Amino acid sequence: MPAAPLSLVPLPAKLTPREGMFQVTPLTRIQTSPALHGVADLLRRYLRPATGMPLTVVEQAPHSRIAIALDPRLAVGDEGYRLTVTPEEVLLRAPKQSGVIHGLQTLRQLLPPATFRRAFVPGMDWKIPCVDIEDRPRFGWRGSHLDVGRHFMPKDFILKHLELLALHKFNVFHWHLTEDQGWRIEIKKYPKLTEVGAFRSDSMTAPRTRDPALRKFSGKPHGGFYTQDDVREVVRYAADRGITVVPEIEMPGHAMAAIAAYPELGNTGQHLEVLTYWGITEHVLGVGDNVLRFFEDVLEEVLTLFPSPFIHIGGDECPKTEWRESPAAQARMKSEGLRDEDELQSWFIRHFDTWLAQRGRRLVGWDEILEGGLAPGATVMSWRGEAGGIAAAKAGHDVVMAPQQPTYMDHSQSELATEPQGIGGHNSLEDVYRYEPIPAELNADEAKHVLGSQGQVWTEYMPDPKRVEYMAWPRLAALAEVLWSPKDARDWDGFQQRLAAHLERLAVLDVNYHGRWPKPA
Amino acid sequence: MPAAPLSLVPLPAKLTPREGMFQVTPLTRIQTSPALHGVADLLRRYLRPATGMPLTVVEQAPHSRIAIALDPRLAVGDEGYRLTVTPEEVLLRAPKQSGVIHGLQTLRQLLPPATFRRAFVPGMDWKIPCVDIEDRPRFGWRGSHLDVGRHFMPKDFILKHLELLALHKFNVFHWHLTEDQGWRIEIKKYPKLTEVGAFRSDSMTAPRTRDPALRKFSGKPHGGFYTQDDVREVVRYAADRGITVVPEIEMPGHAMAAIAAYPELGNTGQHLEVLTYWGITEHVLGVGDNVLRFFEDVLEEVLTLFPSPFIHIGGDECPKTEWRESPAAQARMKSEGLRDEDELQSWFIRHFDTWLAQRGRRLVGWDEILEGGLAPGATVMSWRGEAGGIAAAKAGHDVVMAPQQPTYMDHSQSELATEPQGIGGHNSLEDVYRYEPIPAELNADEAKHVLGSQGQVWTEYMPDPKRVEYMAWPRLAALAEVLWSPKDARDWDGFQQRLAAHLERLAVLDVNYHGRWPKPA
Repeated sequence: MPAAPLSLVPLPAKLTPREGMFQVTPLTRIQTSPALHGVADLLRRYLRPATGMPLTVVEQAPHSRIAIALDPRLAVGDEGYRLTVTPEEVLLRAPKQSGVIHGLQTLRQLLPPATFRRAFVPGMDWKIPCVDIEDRPRFGWRGSHLDVGRHFMPKDFILKHLELLALHKFNVFHWHLTEDQGWRIEIKKYPKLTEVGAFRSDSMTAPRTRDPALRKFSGKPHGGFYTQDDVREVVRYAADRGITVVPEIEMPGHAMAAIAAYPELGNTGQHLEVLTYWGITEHVLGVGDNVLRFFEDVLEEVLTLFPSPFIHIGGDECPKTEWRESPAAQARMKSEGLRDEDELQSWFIRHFDTWLAQRGRRLVGWDEILEGGLAPGATVMSWRGEAGGIAAAKAGHDVVMAPQQPTYMDHSQSELATEPQGIGGHNSLEDVYRYEPIPAELNADEAKHVLGSQGQVWTEYMPDPKRVEYMAWPRLAALAEVLWSPKDARDWDGFQQRLAAHLERLAVLDVNYHGRWPKPA
Repeated sequence: MPAAPLSLVPLPAKLTPREGMFQVTPLTRIQTSPALHGVADLLRRYLRPATGMPLTVVEQAPHSRIAIALDPRLAVGDEGYRLTVTPEEVLLRAPKQSGVIHGLQTLRQLLPPATFRRAFVPGMDWKIPCVDIEDRPRFGWRGSHLDVGRHFMPKDFILKHLELLALHKFNVFHWHLTEDQGWRIEIKKYPKLTEVGAFRSDSMTAPRTRDPALRKFSGKPHGGFYTQDDVREVVRYAADRGITVVPEIEMPGHAMAAIAAYPELGNTGQHLEVLTYWGITEHVLGVGDNVLRFFEDVLEEVLTLFPSPFIHIGGDECPKTEWRESPAAQARMKSEGLRDEDELQSWFIRHFDTWLAQRGRRLVGWDEILEGGLAPGATVMSWRGEAGGIAAAKAGHDVVMAPQQPTYMDHSQSELATEPQGIGGHNSLEDVYRYEPIPAELNADEAKHVLGSQGQVWTEYMPDPKRVEYMAWPRLAALAEVLWSPKDARDWDGFQQRLAAHLERLAVLDVNYHGRWPKPA
């Protein structure tokens, strides 16, 4: 059995190699029922360009078939699947469509890397090694976060990234859509959010510094946003690949682009520019009714665009300086009986927790939402280490683990001087691979609150898609295995071997992964 | 009849609107013969993601059919087609496959812009206005040139660009693959061409200057190359869309990346670095037998990758300084009876003209190949104005018009100070639209030697795909119309109106065209 075709990433839960190969030929048909026609077509779109095989979708194929079927009796969970390849047929079954989609990704990886080319590759033998796979994910939240606020990333790249996430069986794309440095989603009721808030005059460049006098700038304007039609396209494209898009609308901090567009959202009424440098600004949202109504309006539109049960409201890095000086904020604290500004932030978050719950959604926020008291329905994204996540899980809240070590992909992949300058810190591929999302401090019941984990890509020092890919890959491939594969199957040596073959696929897909080129690009 | 659906770019040669609409429904089938199965599948891939319609490909559809057929009796030339839309059927016929492909692009443009989305768009009426179109191109060479030497452009972007070219009925992609600043194509026999030649330590940035003391640099390494498998993918992807890829391997100037990899290719044996700044270097290829053999070997591999009848060997901007001082070059001049260094360059080019002709290919080069005597079979690309093209055509040589005014897309699109800094000069959209590729100086017979024209994208000041798109579009849309549509149909006002609707398509395709965003990006 050749090694490369079985270089699956992530590793399936249970894999039994068998004798022989299934050969894809011009007579091979995709057999499916009407309920899975969309998925069958996705498989066809995956395989047809490179193989040139017609792979017609039919209800009943007598021979040489790739059969895709829903089977509610299979006990592999909502996202699991069973894939059996014999010389006569490929049989992919799953209780739910999402399981079938994950199975498709395994099937693609069983074929040669040339399968991933977008035009016909002549002279190939399109063979699938015979195998019996029973597979299901370890965690239900397998996420990739992308900040498009610091640097706008074109829609095209978002779609490419989603296809890569699907290949690695991720099921959450956390789209960080608003920032001090840019508001990236069209809101019909408030057009200035993008007309003004999506563009800035300049951008800070490396090296990182907190000293304003030492900051360097590109000297070039930067901007861009997604229309609501773009967002619908992205959300649907993701859903077709088993991925939920979780939008993040940051509040009450990291909202300076919104304040630049609508100064009445701030605490001072002062006219501000969309921020051109990185860091934490003291300009945050006010706490007046007008601000609550404004962001309710924004979220109304967001809810129509994103079917995700989770809506991320940020909640991190909100300095209280302006609230301390604002009579309106102080009056709000008094009228609501709040002890301090931490409780004021808590009150703010709680308002949207309730508002979202009334609409059947769940609030998720960065671990600062613990300060001043956690909103009753809130899910915590633990980024400042694991402490926030542990505290929240012990208190019975759901948690997504996103600790800076090792899930922050803006940290460099090595300590070599040749790495591009960035935000600082480093998380190696091995660090990510050895990461255990369930903290030792949690007992079995508490551990159930750990939904999973995700990789964070903050783009202060990533001006374009190429750099994002350089930082994200192959670390996201390692994280995929952490989140999908059984804990006891974790094997760093084995992963490195499989990864070597897997990187060929990423190269064919033109992913600018770390290590692809001799020098950083 | 709504205006937008008939906003075709380029304008067809003959268009007669009719009453009514053809509606694409779940019952619509694509009817075709086995010979056109690949094209039918391309149409299906174009339409299925957004419409969600199955659009099954069949041999005979009783009703609601999109029929695609070869019809050798149609007198519309090799690339022409006839498209008839009635409420009952869409009938697309052409004598050759390339005509059918161009007809597909018209058909896509007759549907709503949402057709171009890559995931299902609900709530749409997928209607095609009834129309009778008989169409054929004015010129046989409708090209887009891209320099990937100064800045490497990822394969993904090349594929996207090709899809855009197809949409505008271009049929030539001139891929400028080698430069002083980077060698971008894998050559199996000489691996250092890419191992060394594809990477450089730094890149010059704006503003443009000839003074070494004033040059500014990014401070970042840059590089990348296409494997031969990548090249095959690109060439096949292009061919599937009616586009020939013409490779350019620059000689004897603009070859410093090759000399950096193999110093024996130069005149001095000196070890050189891949160039980090822009301009014309005096370090050019030597004229020894070893150099001829080397580039024959390179071209051997190039010919296996590119079926194009034309092979571009550059030939521009080759200073003679080193040859004047090189004993070997002087000896070559003497042994070949050459009067001066211009004739030495001519001799060099003529060698490859003969070499290519012996292998059934045609040499094309920049207009400097006229200096010192034009090689017998050479086709001239006229870039320093029209003079070179006129002289060559009068001498009976084929010509591709590529004058800096207005076909250089590295010149800015306006004189506004907000344009990104670049190479200098400016060519407005209107300049491009009003361009006439046949110089007034040519009589009718001489004019037949003008194969067509192409837009040049030199990437000194275009570090990434986003900037390339900003410079290239929508000017390439204007050039498409210049090259495809009948001369007497040229109408600047009408074009502007159609373009407004056409830009919606480009926005959906996420093209960063000039004017898309409020500020240059």
